[in-house]
Amino acid sequence: MEQKKTVIGMLIFPKMTQLDFTGPFEALARVPNAEMHVIWKTLDPVRSDTGLAFLPSTTIAQCPPLDVICVPGGPGQIELMDDPEIIAFVRDMGRRAKYVTSVCTGALVLGAAGLLDGYEAATHWMSAEQLPLFNAKPVAKRIVVDRNRITGGGVTAGIDFGLYLAGQLAGEEAACRIQLFLEYDPAPPFNSGSPRSAPAAIVQGVREWAANMLERRWAASRRAAERMKAAAPAAR
Amino acid sequence: MEQKKTVIGMLIFPKMTQLDFTGPFEALARVPNAEMHVIWKTLDPVRSDTGLAFLPSTTIAQCPPLDVICVPGGPGQIELMDDPEIIAFVRDMGRRAKYVTSVCTGALVLGAAGLLDGYEAATHWMSAEQLPLFNAKPVAKRIVVDRNRITGGGVTAGIDFGLYLAGQLAGEEAACRIQLFLEYDPAPPFNSGSPRSAPAAIVQGVREWAANMLERRWAASRRAAERMKAAAPAAR
Repeated sequence: MEQKKTVIGMLIFPKMTQLDFTGPFEALARVPNAEMHVIWKTLDPVRSDTGLAFLPSTTIAQCPPLDVICVPGGPGQIELMDDPEIIAFVRDMGRRAKYVTSVCTGALVLGAAGLLDGYEAATHWMSAEQLPLFNAKPVAKRIVVDRNRITGGGVTAGIDFGLYLAGQLAGEEAACRIQLFLEYDPAPPFNSGSPRSAPAAIVQGVREWAANMLERRWAASRRAAERMKAAAPAAR
Repeated sequence: MEQKKTVIGMLIFPKMTQLDFTGPFEALARVPNAEMHVIWKTLDPVRSDTGLAFLPSTTIAQCPPLDVICVPGGPGQIELMDDPEIIAFVRDMGRRAKYVTSVCTGALVLGAAGLLDGYEAATHWMSAEQLPLFNAKPVAKRIVVDRNRITGGGVTAGIDFGLYLAGQLAGEEAACRIQLFLEYDPAPPFNSGSPRSAPAAIVQGVREWAANMLERRWAASRRAAERMKAAAPAAR
């Protein structure tokens, strides 16, 4: 007897931060009976913010209903929030999915689709203050679970998130096997992984380097939040 | 005045474990003045062992000389060890590179190219016993540094490795900024990341699941080691 597939769709897009996507993909694709879909508007190559090129496996027009939708983040997420076609796709899929998930600033795309209204969520530490625009409450954790919304923090939190979600989908034993196969016993060579642990000068340096991107993200989040709140509740 | 580029080449190949590649790519592509090359025999799409499709940026015939060569691992690494064209490419690039590196079972490809002869190295925990075939000494660490050979352990160790190498290339401050931007403050949801910490039943389960792959890898490593040792020292 064939076991039921778990249909998992991950949105990709130009200028995403690829590890937001590839980290959880590695864990989720190893869930027994997972059927993975890599989704974009077309089947053309999609380039990350560092230039790495991926091929989507399906399009938003052809994507089947999903048990899990996952939206990664990165600079290109700013354009997504202003893209009605993407927001409608995420909202539609998210309403029907068993798990609505994101990594990093992908949470703001869920927010723009109205899917975090009244929920706690994680996102990249630099963008956490933007979540309340979408009536979501930021929580400074690697993985935040609120009912069926599961959101990961910045970039590498996607691996923690992916293993946690693998456990929800297939049980802890399956997730532990995946963790062992991926030898996920991390030992960062420096102690600079969060704004709480990093030296103040490093935090300041990253904030300055990212200032322009952050400003553009704030503006897009404000626009998206206005549209979200102006929409009729049925269209949220 | 233009600063000198650091030319970094990562080999990709069919049935690689994509996180072996994408983890360090994310860190290394953020090294100031890094010029990234994603290398395969052709420019056709390359599919990981979980079906994720990447586009190479260059070919082994057109790849420029590299400051850093990095070989990831995964099931497809078994075929690479029997591929004289790939072994010659890795040997040739490795001899001229400033850093010769690998993640996971990519170390066995370096070994097959004679590049770990007399060196300590890391690899995936299930394949560590194969390193001595290539006269390399396995060390059960996430990152092993022996002169200019820098090797990472299994899959996710590539992120630790990538940050360490970023520090070597650009200094600790730059690496700490990358770590903070990637929010690499890991918190695995389970305690199953190494054969030392995982429950014995999980270790046994993964070994059984991977038994066939491991057997094929042993056979290919033995063949590759014989060819490596039969070659004249100048061709090693």
